[in-house]
Amino acid sequence: MKVAIIGLGLIGGSIGLALREAGFGDVAGYDQRPEVVSRALERGAIDHGASSVAAAARDAGLVVLATPPLAVREAMIELAPELAAHSIVTDTASTKQQVLAWARELLPPRASFVGGHPMAGSEQHGIDNARADLFRDATYCLVVDDATSTHDLVAVEGMVASLGAAPLRIDAAVHDAAVAAVSHLPFVVAAALVASALAEQPPGSTALPSRPERRRLAATGFRDTTRTASGDPLMHRDICLANANALRPLLLDMARRLDEVAAHLDEPEFLLSFFTGAQRTRDEWRRGDGETGSGRDRGT
Amino acid sequence: MKVAIIGLGLIGGSIGLALREAGFGDVAGYDQRPEVVSRALERGAIDHGASSVAAAARDAGLVVLATPPLAVREAMIELAPELAAHSIVTDTASTKQQVLAWARELLPPRASFVGGHPMAGSEQHGIDNARADLFRDATYCLVVDDATSTHDLVAVEGMVASLGAAPLRIDAAVHDAAVAAVSHLPFVVAAALVASALAEQPPGSTALPSRPERRRLAATGFRDTTRTASGDPLMHRDICLANANALRPLLLDMARRLDEVAAHLDEPEFLLSFFTGAQRTRDEWRRGDGETGSGRDRGT
Repeated sequence: MKVAIIGLGLIGGSIGLALREAGFGDVAGYDQRPEVVSRALERGAIDHGASSVAAAARDAGLVVLATPPLAVREAMIELAPELAAHSIVTDTASTKQQVLAWARELLPPRASFVGGHPMAGSEQHGIDNARADLFRDATYCLVVDDATSTHDLVAVEGMVASLGAAPLRIDAAVHDAAVAAVSHLPFVVAAALVASALAEQPPGSTALPSRPERRRLAATGFRDTTRTASGDPLMHRDICLANANALRPLLLDMARRLDEVAAHLDEPEFLLSFFTGAQRTRDEWRRGDGETGSGRDRGT
Repeated sequence: MKVAIIGLGLIGGSIGLALREAGFGDVAGYDQRPEVVSRALERGAIDHGASSVAAAARDAGLVVLATPPLAVREAMIELAPELAAHSIVTDTASTKQQVLAWARELLPPRASFVGGHPMAGSEQHGIDNARADLFRDATYCLVVDDATSTHDLVAVEGMVASLGAAPLRIDAAVHDAAVAAVSHLPFVVAAALVASALAEQPPGSTALPSRPERRRLAATGFRDTTRTASGDPLMHRDICLANANALRPLLLDMARRLDEVAAHLDEPEFLLSFFTGAQRTRDEWRRGDGETGSGRDRGT
């Protein structure tokens, strides 16, 4: 079966590497930038490069859309006329309600859509950072609507399993609300933290030492807390736009908590209780407590 | 020269391991918990265990206070009568104005005080996690007041260099304001993020999916952004109490930024500019841009 990958960045490239390692022998790839297609060929992430979305999708049994989120719509428009009967389209975007709506609107009834979201990534991006084991042991969310046959869902689950990931069937709205809390909120918080801690002159704290002094004292705690802020701004813009309704109340909740700590900074009992609660909640999550998932340390 | 280490947790234990590896042959250690002293002996972090602060400090040329921040004061009271003429006391607490004031108040004129703060640590703690290379290439802040001789400051700089760290002379008030921004703020933010993202039922976002669903979808981004929230709540309580005045405006600034993003979640240009600015600022910091310091990736 021919597999087409549209978008050959970190995610698309890693899917190609993993599928070819798993024995898929006919992987076509397309990227907006021809030099990325060449690099994907060199790295062995695809068997052949295509010069358009349509050319890549032609005769494919499975089309994987791994473009930035907002480019998924355009890709659907371009590939729709080329889709073979019984072909399956899947994507990797970080929010799922929007792509499900686009698929309903834009894809022909002869093809079927299964939305996908691998819970793995990196602040690094691009084909040069792609690796075959990026998805190993990661949760890989799959969403469908009523029109999707179980047969097609099972087919995509097979593809996901061959990446080394654990497929998880989930409702699109539940998915979007959950990732707003555990993925999109942490990203915005990391970006805001960089701004507050390293701004040339943060408003409201005129007594701050110079930026070089602050930068010199920043250590591993700062590095890790802000890691995701080095991620692709365009991708995160698209994610925030698509998931604004779920993200907004969480940002307000977080701001309220910071205001609350600021108001209680002289109260030992408040601080100890707040920090102990956070430590316990995070450590429970790390231990997994009987749940399966990708949250725990996988040695990366 | 005899060195005494008071408090044999991650920091005190690592200092002992590093000093003994560097050839210091007479390292005494005390910890409130006798089993920690035994473990430090087993691990080779000290040459002999002492049964009290006073016994450890007796005849020591250098006393290193590596207790939790608020316990530094009590330790100073206990060791003051024992201090030899020309001995030097140093500490490792995360804020420096408070300990300088305690030293002025509590230590005898025959001894001298040099405040210290190694910019290295871990959310792990305890003697079992101590390691000789914990401070390698880390910035190690040193603060003094007018009463301290340059000779004594240079002596502590020598000790710091033998840990593999880079000593940095800094004003105590500048230090405290800088670490409020790049260390204490990130910790409180991580704790608040755990609370917002994984709370059983966060106020203001009643539509959130169940906690198990959110936990299952949390991946490496959440893990790293919240890592420091697994740190010792007691130590962080002491830090926040000691540095409340520097930390408060930063918490309010950060809350204001989150409110601002929440208000602009439908505006592509605002989001792209905010995220691009944070990415650029963080990447500049990571590259170092001509500065020396411990901020950049040291492969840990």
